[in-house]
Amino acid sequence: MTTALHDSSMRGFASDNYSGVHPEVLTALAEANGGHQVAYGGDQYTAELGRVITSHFGEHSTVFPVFNGTAANVTALQSLLPRWGAVVCAASAHINVDENGAPERVGGMKLLSVPTTDGKLTPELIDQEAWGWGDEHRAQPLAVSITQSTELGTLYTLDELRAITEHAHNLGMRVHMDGARLANAAVALGVGLGEMTTGTGIDILSLGGTKNGIMFGEGIVTLSEGPVDSMKYLRKLNMQLASKMRFISAQLLALYGTDLWRTSASHSNAMAARLSAGVQGTDGVELVYPTQSNGVFAALPNAAADALRERFPFYDWDRAAGQVRWMCSFDTTEADIDAFLAALKQELAKIRA
Amino acid sequence: MTTALHDSSMRGFASDNYSGVHPEVLTALAEANGGHQVAYGGDQYTAELGRVITSHFGEHSTVFPVFNGTAANVTALQSLLPRWGAVVCAASAHINVDENGAPERVGGMKLLSVPTTDGKLTPELIDQEAWGWGDEHRAQPLAVSITQSTELGTLYTLDELRAITEHAHNLGMRVHMDGARLANAAVALGVGLGEMTTGTGIDILSLGGTKNGIMFGEGIVTLSEGPVDSMKYLRKLNMQLASKMRFISAQLLALYGTDLWRTSASHSNAMAARLSAGVQGTDGVELVYPTQSNGVFAALPNAAADALRERFPFYDWDRAAGQVRWMCSFDTTEADIDAFLAALKQELAKIRA
Amino acid sequence: MTTALHDSSMRGFASDNYSGVHPEVLTALAEANGGHQVAYGGDQYTAELGRVITSHFGEHSTVFPVFNGTAANVTALQSLLPRWGAVVCAASAHINVDENGAPERVGGMKLLSVPTTDGKLTPELIDQEAWGWGDEHRAQPLAVSITQSTELGTLYTLDELRAITEHAHNLGMRVHMDGARLANAAVALGVGLGEMTTGTGIDILSLGGTKNGIMFGEGIVTLSEGPVDSMKYLRKLNMQLASKMRFISAQLLALYGTDLWRTSASHSNAMAARLSAGVQGTDGVELVYPTQSNGVFAALPNAAADALRERFPFYDWDRAAGQVRWMCSFDTTEADIDAFLAALKQELAKIRA
Amino acid sequence: MTTALHDSSMRGFASDNYSGVHPEVLTALAEANGGHQVAYGGDQYTAELGRVITSHFGEHSTVFPVFNGTAANVTALQSLLPRWGAVVCAASAHINVDENGAPERVGGMKLLSVPTTDGKLTPELIDQEAWGWGDEHRAQPLAVSITQSTELGTLYTLDELRAITEHAHNLGMRVHMDGARLANAAVALGVGLGEMTTGTGIDILSLGGTKNGIMFGEGIVTLSEGPVDSMKYLRKLNMQLASKMRFISAQLLALYGTDLWRTSASHSNAMAARLSAGVQGTDGVELVYPTQSNGVFAALPNAAADALRERFPFYDWDRAAGQVRWMCSFDTTEADIDAFLAALKQELAKIRA
Repeated sequence: MTTALHDSSMRGFASDNYSGVHPEVLTALAEANGGHQVAYGGDQYTAELGRVITSHFGEHSTVFPVFNGTAANVTALQSLLPRWGAVVCAASAHINVDENGAPERVGGMKLLSVPTTDGKLTPELIDQEAWGWGDEHRAQPLAVSITQSTELGTLYTLDELRAITEHAHNLGMRVHMDGARLANAAVALGVGLGEMTTGTGIDILSLGGTKNGIMFGEGIVTLSEGPVDSMKYLRKLNMQLASKMRFISAQLLALYGTDLWRTSASHSNAMAARLSAGVQGTDGVELVYPTQSNGVFAALPNAAADALRERFPFYDWDRAAGQVRWMCSFDTTEADIDAFLAALKQELAKIRA
Repeated sequence: MTTALHDSSMRGFASDNYSGVHPEVLTALAEANGGHQVAYGGDQYTAELGRVITSHFGEHSTVFPVFNGTAANVTALQSLLPRWGAVVCAASAHINVDENGAPERVGGMKLLSVPTTDGKLTPELIDQEAWGWGDEHRAQPLAVSITQSTELGTLYTLDELRAITEHAHNLGMRVHMDGARLANAAVALGVGLGEMTTGTGIDILSLGGTKNGIMFGEGIVTLSEGPVDSMKYLRKLNMQLASKMRFISAQLLALYGTDLWRTSASHSNAMAARLSAGVQGTDGVELVYPTQSNGVFAALPNAAADALRERFPFYDWDRAAGQVRWMCSFDTTEADIDAFLAALKQELAKIRA
Repeated sequence: MTTALHDSSMRGFASDNYSGVHPEVLTALAEANGGHQVAYGGDQYTAELGRVITSHFGEHSTVFPVFNGTAANVTALQSLLPRWGAVVCAASAHINVDENGAPERVGGMKLLSVPTTDGKLTPELIDQEAWGWGDEHRAQPLAVSITQSTELGTLYTLDELRAITEHAHNLGMRVHMDGARLANAAVALGVGLGEMTTGTGIDILSLGGTKNGIMFGEGIVTLSEGPVDSMKYLRKLNMQLASKMRFISAQLLALYGTDLWRTSASHSNAMAARLSAGVQGTDGVELVYPTQSNGVFAALPNAAADALRERFPFYDWDRAAGQVRWMCSFDTTEADIDAFLAALKQELAKIRA
Repeated sequence: MTTALHDSSMRGFASDNYSGVHPEVLTALAEANGGHQVAYGGDQYTAELGRVITSHFGEHSTVFPVFNGTAANVTALQSLLPRWGAVVCAASAHINVDENGAPERVGGMKLLSVPTTDGKLTPELIDQEAWGWGDEHRAQPLAVSITQSTELGTLYTLDELRAITEHAHNLGMRVHMDGARLANAAVALGVGLGEMTTGTGIDILSLGGTKNGIMFGEGIVTLSEGPVDSMKYLRKLNMQLASKMRFISAQLLALYGTDLWRTSASHSNAMAARLSAGVQGTDGVELVYPTQSNGVFAALPNAAADALRERFPFYDWDRAAGQVRWMCSFDTTEADIDAFLAALKQELAKIRA
């Protein structure tokens, strides 16, 4: 195979994983190649990644590279829970709606999900399901899982995060953060990665990579000392131990060992802001949630959405409610946004006609 | 990160996953990059991979890319089994000794393992555990798993494979092949990939990639129609659905859509043969198993092995018995072999002195 | 041990499993004793139970005795589901709130729970979670589980049951009924056991025993042919195969092979009705749900409830809302009800004073 | 149902669970009946059972009644293991061959089984699988499970038990004893229940009941403090929490709170000894294992076994080897043995003729 099979001019807003790989990541993969390196994480790249992670998240942090986000979430949560544990999460959480029950089936945990208006838990919402300790009939709520930025593109402030972790810790629960889009949250809030996680009392983190321009790979980052010992076994038995781990670590190094995480996330956030601003000035379409990171959630007639989708792929979010999701990526351009907004206006005008 | 962190001149015989990535695979990854492609397998590379797999394995074959070999094995076996199923396998099988119980814990299956002299099952060996159907006290033996080439570097002939699949099918059992090193077997036997699998009645295959020079990725290949429908759900719930799947598929295309699988496997086999021939001519070391693919198993004094290992990494296989494993890779050179053999002779001479 | 250790005059309204065993059931156990009988269900009592169940539930029904209700529910649901299946249920369902995650952890299924006002699902409520078939990211909703009578003491009419099964079957889903209190529902509705289950299209049933006056034991009753073959294996691997099964079967025979199921359930329902009537005539306490079977749910000041509880054990249902549950049993007497009502009035009067 | 359905004169040697219930146990059940008792273990009988168990097994012991032996084993082992744990056991262990994979499927553990000549592990046999700690590829061997008396009717001496627990503890492993027939072992060895368990360093025990004349019920007995806290949750999520627990506890009290455990086990052992002595004096049949408790394992022509089985049910143990198992029970009589021996001689004579 010596030529590309795909039309690389195709662009869309379906997901930040429709995009490919940042050139610096490809370069890093090539540089990590050649010669022999100890498999399963005994390589130089994984060692260096450990140092970089510590520089972000503090001296008690440890990183365990895995293949994808679902696995990072399930493995991280398992490390917090005994066999009878349950996890309080938002009803809209990826672990609850997008992982085909892997947390339950593979992780053996029960999810206690709570409806939210914006994808964000609060101490009060957590209390809806955080009760019943000591009663063996009830799956014991011993962890909270939150997503930053959320599946709805919204953000927790640092104060909100602290309120959650303090509340949870007071209840004897530990807190997991699904950070598939952690970089987008950090740049939107103007804070450091560690400040937003270790600094707010998060116990364990799924650190995203794929959605911010790498090829594959996420990191489970333990922020307190507890789960470190168990993690290496859990990662293996969950079928997530990469043999040529140097190639995950090299990508995560390319992202987090430089400013690439920040520049890419800033860019995708800026593109979403540009799109959001355009939407706000357009009749017939309106925002469903505030645009705080790299996703725009909008309501418009299904017919307009369907026509638009023929040129720019994207997903319905709630078809019955006429809601769609538009995701921006590290490689989304201003021209992409402007072309999309022009097409949007055109289709909405057709509908009104 | 702009420079390599590792010493790419380091070489060894520890494993075919200590080596890196074939240059053609890196090129393929670069070509698959750019623009947007439908995530989770809806891309052009995965579609083309489907066609390539069919050309090898026949019109009823379907490929499901996953991240690694353990996951390929567990997911493939789950697709063959009800919740009460058990798998007859060799005691030395990777699923039994190297997967931290993932088949049992994640797959929910019982392994019925049988000791062998050379890593190979036979109908007679299968019969040691293939009994008790209809008795609910016994985990029901409904699948056989064999490895080609085996974990001990040995090979099943086509006649041996046919004898196993016929025997198993007559018993109502289905047959999984762990083909992490399928290419090494095919070139050693001088047969095609489909001839050795579909042609001998294998039902489902873990098709290796990583150990033959790609970065990450294996394929589950269903060879009969049964498990196709369930596979997409099993892959997802087993946390093996890659979002940017085009990059697994592009690698498998680089390997199996060209002659690269053949040339790389032929090369690593040839290097093992060269090493094996050298061992056979050396006092103080002897072969433990016949060298039939890319692994050499030898017995020598532990002291010699330990001294040798300081320059060339490799693993003990059975330290109590003084047995070691030397694996050759797509990038092993004749010079590597010759240097290693020279060092081996030197260390053995020291021991004798 | 030759004397009773407990005060058999103690009575209460905590649960229908605080009560003991009906004398006819004790007699049946004694009669089933003596001599040797084939273990694990090959006995005469289990054979006869099969005939009795068929007489109630129709010729295609088959019974599998198990130890308790949680196990009956989990095993029954497993038999309806592939490994990627999910179950739509009421948020108040026993499987969701009282089984410590056994459906998820042991059964490997995901529960998609829906809030209800009265513990009852409807086709519209089912539709809140019955969607997404074919999307591997979503746990596939392939079963509905309903409870009759519900955990809130309410009842589905036959028309309501038919509407649910027709809706579910049209969606390709199958329907499980948790019938821990099936007898109470049947006598309240004045219908036969089969009329309410097989007759309304239910696919599989957890048939209660313990809560209606037996010592231990429930029956999984398959009403359609599908799950029969798998059930014997699932029961065993779920650790629910009783060796001396004759003693479960003899109890279920004592209950369902005579009119005992009917007379005991009628009695406990009547006692609940008497209690409910008394509540309705009392100031300071009111019903939370209509009293349709053997449970009364009432709201009263926590202080009154706590004082009352010192003499008659019962549980808070929702302490924050001041709601309690009072269950009647086969051995509840009119005198028990009258004494309780008198004490209730007394405590409420104290509160008002 | 007012008459027995079965022929209570039928007798056999199939299993100690073909027999029924000792009259004292039936009496105990009747005495525990009446009135209301707190469900799920909050009753007087369970409290008293706790005291009785402590008197046998020491002040740090705690009992958790469950329904059956498979569940006792799986739950006990889970309490000793993290999610990555493995159990070294004899290949003939009940957990390995008679539980349809429940330890793996429900318990999530891997069994590392070792062939033995007599069903007994030794430190040397344990070492065959007790290795590889710290290597995440290997399921971590953190527990040993032994059966006393074994599935082959043999016994560990106290010295042998101490050697195993010391060896295991030195390796950081804990030791589970499957005591389904613990009483038979204790009376055969002439030692106390606690002396043989707590006294030899066993960590957790499955304490048998059903095979020694009760109706249903076993006890998990924690002998060290570790697993107590987790047990109540594990029992519930494993679907083994009996609602009317007083009736399990009352039976175990009838057995272990009096001398009944001893007299019944002594009797069944004596009957096996009588049978064994008769076998030893008979041409054409010979013992396969020494008769040390209540089971006799013999080799005889299959034709003779089949003829004999028509009058006295029993199981083949290894048909290919012409081996059968004859179990004696609390209700086996000298007349049963003598009639059986006479018939045995008769059938063997026919074969020789």
